[in-house]
Amino acid sequence: MIYDLIIIGGGPAGITAGIYAGRQRMKTLLITKEFGGQMAKKATEVCNYPGFEKITGMELIEKFVSHLEKQESVEIESLEAEKIEKVDGIFTVTTTENKKFQSKTVIVATGADPRPLEAIGEKEFIGKGVGYCVTCDGPLFKNKTVAVVGGGNAGLEAALFMTNYANKIYVLEFGAEIKADQENKNEAEKSEKIEIITNASVKEVKGETMVSGLIYEDQKTKELKTLEVQGVFIEIGSQPATALAKGLVDFTKRDEIMIESETFKTKTPGLFAAGDDNSGPYKQIVTAAGEGCKASLAAYDYLRTLK
Amino acid sequence: MIYDLIIIGGGPAGITAGIYAGRQRMKTLLITKEFGGQMAKKATEVCNYPGFEKITGMELIEKFVSHLEKQESVEIESLEAEKIEKVDGIFTVTTTENKKFQSKTVIVATGADPRPLEAIGEKEFIGKGVGYCVTCDGPLFKNKTVAVVGGGNAGLEAALFMTNYANKIYVLEFGAEIKADQENKNEAEKSEKIEIITNASVKEVKGETMVSGLIYEDQKTKELKTLEVQGVFIEIGSQPATALAKGLVDFTKRDEIMIESETFKTKTPGLFAAGDDNSGPYKQIVTAAGEGCKASLAAYDYLRTLK
Repeated sequence: MIYDLIIIGGGPAGITAGIYAGRQRMKTLLITKEFGGQMAKKATEVCNYPGFEKITGMELIEKFVSHLEKQESVEIESLEAEKIEKVDGIFTVTTTENKKFQSKTVIVATGADPRPLEAIGEKEFIGKGVGYCVTCDGPLFKNKTVAVVGGGNAGLEAALFMTNYANKIYVLEFGAEIKADQENKNEAEKSEKIEIITNASVKEVKGETMVSGLIYEDQKTKELKTLEVQGVFIEIGSQPATALAKGLVDFTKRDEIMIESETFKTKTPGLFAAGDDNSGPYKQIVTAAGEGCKASLAAYDYLRTLK
Repeated sequence: MIYDLIIIGGGPAGITAGIYAGRQRMKTLLITKEFGGQMAKKATEVCNYPGFEKITGMELIEKFVSHLEKQESVEIESLEAEKIEKVDGIFTVTTTENKKFQSKTVIVATGADPRPLEAIGEKEFIGKGVGYCVTCDGPLFKNKTVAVVGGGNAGLEAALFMTNYANKIYVLEFGAEIKADQENKNEAEKSEKIEIITNASVKEVKGETMVSGLIYEDQKTKELKTLEVQGVFIEIGSQPATALAKGLVDFTKRDEIMIESETFKTKTPGLFAAGDDNSGPYKQIVTAAGEGCKASLAAYDYLRTLK
């Protein structure tokens, strides 16, 4: 069987591509190990997807997935895609379990994974105090002291979420200034639990069996300082999950897939990339959804040229 | 008073730009005579905005507007913008009532108006049987016969909506083939009330005080044919409402504002265009919303370069 379209990824870009593929009656397979993408890991409530003033990431995912499941021409496989190849005009997508699926077009909507800090001790203490998802692990730190590494929106939103649980939250920012929204900055400054430390280069996560501290260098004084914390959340951006497209696309320095930003096509005809995995700026739920829609309609137009 | 941002237009692009401007605490004015844009005129229910499986255009607008109204830094003026000028780095937006507002950045999200057919009699019979909005006027044609001119998605959706009221609906398509979604085509073909006529070049709307017929040329036989109808709905696309930006932007042949499709900036620094009024392909509610978001974040970035 050769599908019209295989969509890889179950975040807002992939799901929206699927909804539009269904509307176009394209014979479609959506491959994803789990739904939601970054939405599933969102710490605070989602307040910026138009139409929902305030909704949890999980609730919004459920609505997206239920909308997708209404599409009769779209099948869903709960697998992890590992490789994409194109031979004689047909794409083959291979999963980690070595299952193979064929299609005339592919939309890569694999999003991005949290970027590791690469500090000493970080890897050893994952699940023992080091985390990348405050919604998942935050409640474990009730009445504790935690550090959030990263002063962008993700970092401040994680810190604000942690005010529900922790007694004290340090936010460590490498740069001289916090880079988050004014809204997030204002809220963080209002909180008595949050202390922001700038010019902080995190060097090491310390502990015996569990995290007990964090060492950072004050980049102005070059002094090493230690914070007593029981938890460390890393919120320093993300790593696009794009290795599977190697050989078929060009990448930016940050491993994003290079796209043409009107149709989201890549350099390989029939292959598109939508959402957090591509080279476009401004990564939001609503922009990922918009890109998934455009990529899906562009795939439909491309299919018509094959006939 | 000089705003950070003036948004012109109250459709999904303008509203989403406003929501994001609010999140960024930009001092913002949104100018629109009415909210909803094309959503307000949508005949059938909206089934393709992710998160809502099925919702009327009006309900979706209400949710968008209520979301916008939560933004503390965004004011709303119920006026019609007529002209944009830029002098000494500051934009002035003038309304039809000659009110003037000033701002450092502007997002034009004025959408598009229905395109007239320019057939004989069309103008004279507007409101007397000729219409451009079946949701608005459709119920007036209960148990009547109507023609819908245009075989794209808008035309077929209008025809499907009219099956709720009219006894018989002709769809007249200029080309040799219907250009709508397969989904819409299938539904139209299933309906016993809908008759599709291709290769039809509409020449004249006829009547005394009210519409009584429509004359078209069969482009294959060159024969003129008359249909007895009491209503004619024109659904042949739209005309971007972009005249107000003249002098500051470049236009396509179809009067769309030329944009750079990553940030939606125009050739005038600080001036952006999002949604149905720009040169990008694929005009959907979710793509307009995504573009409004990106334009708003790009306007924020531009403002920071001014400091």
